[in-house]
Amino acid sequence: MSQNSSLEPQCPLPLASDDTIRLAHGGGGRLMQQLIHEIFLEAFSNSYLNALQDSAVLPTQDGRLAMTTDSYVVQPLFFPGGDIGSLAIHGTINDLAMMGASPHYLSAGFILEEGLPIITLKQIVSSMAKTAQDCGVHIVCGDTKVVDRGKGDQIFINTTGLGVIPQSVDIGPHRLTPGDRIIVSGDLGAHGMAVLSQREGLEFSGNLRSDSAPLPDVIADLLKHNIAIHCLRDLTRGGLASALNELATAGPSTMTIKESCIPISDPVRGACEILGLDPLYVANEGRFVMFLPSEDVDRALSLLHQHAVSKNATDIGEIRLPESTPHQSLVTLETRYGTHRILDLLSGEQLPRIC
Amino acid sequence: MSQNSSLEPQCPLPLASDDTIRLAHGGGGRLMQQLIHEIFLEAFSNSYLNALQDSAVLPTQDGRLAMTTDSYVVQPLFFPGGDIGSLAIHGTINDLAMMGASPHYLSAGFILEEGLPIITLKQIVSSMAKTAQDCGVHIVCGDTKVVDRGKGDQIFINTTGLGVIPQSVDIGPHRLTPGDRIIVSGDLGAHGMAVLSQREGLEFSGNLRSDSAPLPDVIADLLKHNIAIHCLRDLTRGGLASALNELATAGPSTMTIKESCIPISDPVRGACEILGLDPLYVANEGRFVMFLPSEDVDRALSLLHQHAVSKNATDIGEIRLPESTPHQSLVTLETRYGTHRILDLLSGEQLPRIC
Repeated sequence: MSQNSSLEPQCPLPLASDDTIRLAHGGGGRLMQQLIHEIFLEAFSNSYLNALQDSAVLPTQDGRLAMTTDSYVVQPLFFPGGDIGSLAIHGTINDLAMMGASPHYLSAGFILEEGLPIITLKQIVSSMAKTAQDCGVHIVCGDTKVVDRGKGDQIFINTTGLGVIPQSVDIGPHRLTPGDRIIVSGDLGAHGMAVLSQREGLEFSGNLRSDSAPLPDVIADLLKHNIAIHCLRDLTRGGLASALNELATAGPSTMTIKESCIPISDPVRGACEILGLDPLYVANEGRFVMFLPSEDVDRALSLLHQHAVSKNATDIGEIRLPESTPHQSLVTLETRYGTHRILDLLSGEQLPRIC
Repeated sequence: MSQNSSLEPQCPLPLASDDTIRLAHGGGGRLMQQLIHEIFLEAFSNSYLNALQDSAVLPTQDGRLAMTTDSYVVQPLFFPGGDIGSLAIHGTINDLAMMGASPHYLSAGFILEEGLPIITLKQIVSSMAKTAQDCGVHIVCGDTKVVDRGKGDQIFINTTGLGVIPQSVDIGPHRLTPGDRIIVSGDLGAHGMAVLSQREGLEFSGNLRSDSAPLPDVIADLLKHNIAIHCLRDLTRGGLASALNELATAGPSTMTIKESCIPISDPVRGACEILGLDPLYVANEGRFVMFLPSEDVDRALSLLHQHAVSKNATDIGEIRLPESTPHQSLVTLETRYGTHRILDLLSGEQLPRIC
């Protein structure tokens, strides 16, 4: 029990770079207060968060709300093109953007393993703060738990996002229509392959760099220009093939895409060939697939090409009515050799812990 | 790469009770789909969640929003009076209630350790679903990640809550006023001691049972009856003493509470004495402290006593103007012997991983 005395300092010494996370940093006492003030408030400061209440109080929002959650457990924490902090912002705001929402607010929940170097936490938090600022979103509430050494893996981050969907926007699988064209926003597989090669210490020729990037701006631009977006999906775990399968099931419909049109960079193609992976199933963190009527494709592509994040956007195929077996939703790849291959859902996964 | 053939089943076999979580359950493929459909959708089903979009689409809300996040890492997962699932609902909706918000929507983010028995996951998810239903909140979006064996601890859950604050409600530390009475809603320390004794296999005389419970209803009742609540705080990590210290700092003010008025059950008192713990610093999950003008105290207590969760609510003290040193916020305990003891913030924590 703590007895106050003039000899006992009111506050612990400032956190030093060579400090590590202790169980007591999650205990509700002075050390937790210090962590909150010196690390989190210092980086994320905004009026909602700084109030340090049990909940953040946010203004009334004019429109339907979009809410999404993701936990991030990527290993390694730092990889070419990003880190767990920037990923935790991009991944969550991209899920909001896929509903046509403009992202506004994020929560941040940290599960820290005892022994995590404070300097590592600071780097991650600083990356989160910079990414959030660049993307115009506020981290309005947070939570920190500490688990014993060996019961976690350095740091896990949950971000939950809140955005607002303009009244005129209606995006979703219910709007998928036979005849819709299918556009991918850029080259596929870079995020998964960059994380994997960093984790396994693999060296491939060429530059493998995560595609992790924010998507709300390009989606907002498409909506501003009245592109009739029917459906959007970001191509995270399971990649393009899994996203198309999920949407074809929601339809139901048949989707046909052309292998020769799908952009895949040489380094990703090379690394996938060596490792026996299919880039169509590899995760991306800054790529999406869009469905829209064919008459809007040219305008959409020309807008997409103006944004760095979608400068390689390509029309890769179309939705068709299911042919022979009406209850069978299928995704078919037309190969370079003119044959057809069914792109099924994989059973498990190719790459664990890439986000 | 998966090749579709008539010999390969389209879906994996239904999850069996003796199955365990595999890395592939987090991989974006068929096994993850199965987990989502057979466990999560089965338990949490509602129109927002069932859409299975990148974000849940929620109706426009009439009022300011309250947003809060908490990760739950409690060990053991099951304890007398609750489990990590019920706790993940109560803890988060209570944080909303502390701002006077009515809780509406929750996200649920799961971090599962490879090897977690499916039956354990089902029990926890079922408890979450029942608790959410009892509390009138919807789990509208979710996420599941799987980490390798030895890199987690069975299951961690993040819930982020969204509620609506009625226009007339203004609750927070900015309204703390000298003369305000301080009410605690019930006996203290039961949650922390129940979890600790379960974890350590300690047997104490008497019934140690967590106080984990939802608080929104009793707060709504107080507001409905126009009790002039100035400030609320739920007494989680760090217990009553830490909550008062945080609020006194926000003031700044001096808070004086009477030891003889603070309700503590005999089993908690006994267990704390044996273990050398101070119940004023032990976590609760269904208790709060309320600050209000003295003229409203009698009406407030009579309302509180009508709710099971606050039937032992007691007036324990008051806010005073800081006396000698105006910049020093202090919480003072008037002991049973008439002496005064300063209740300081502890440095670390008494009990790790109790929520």
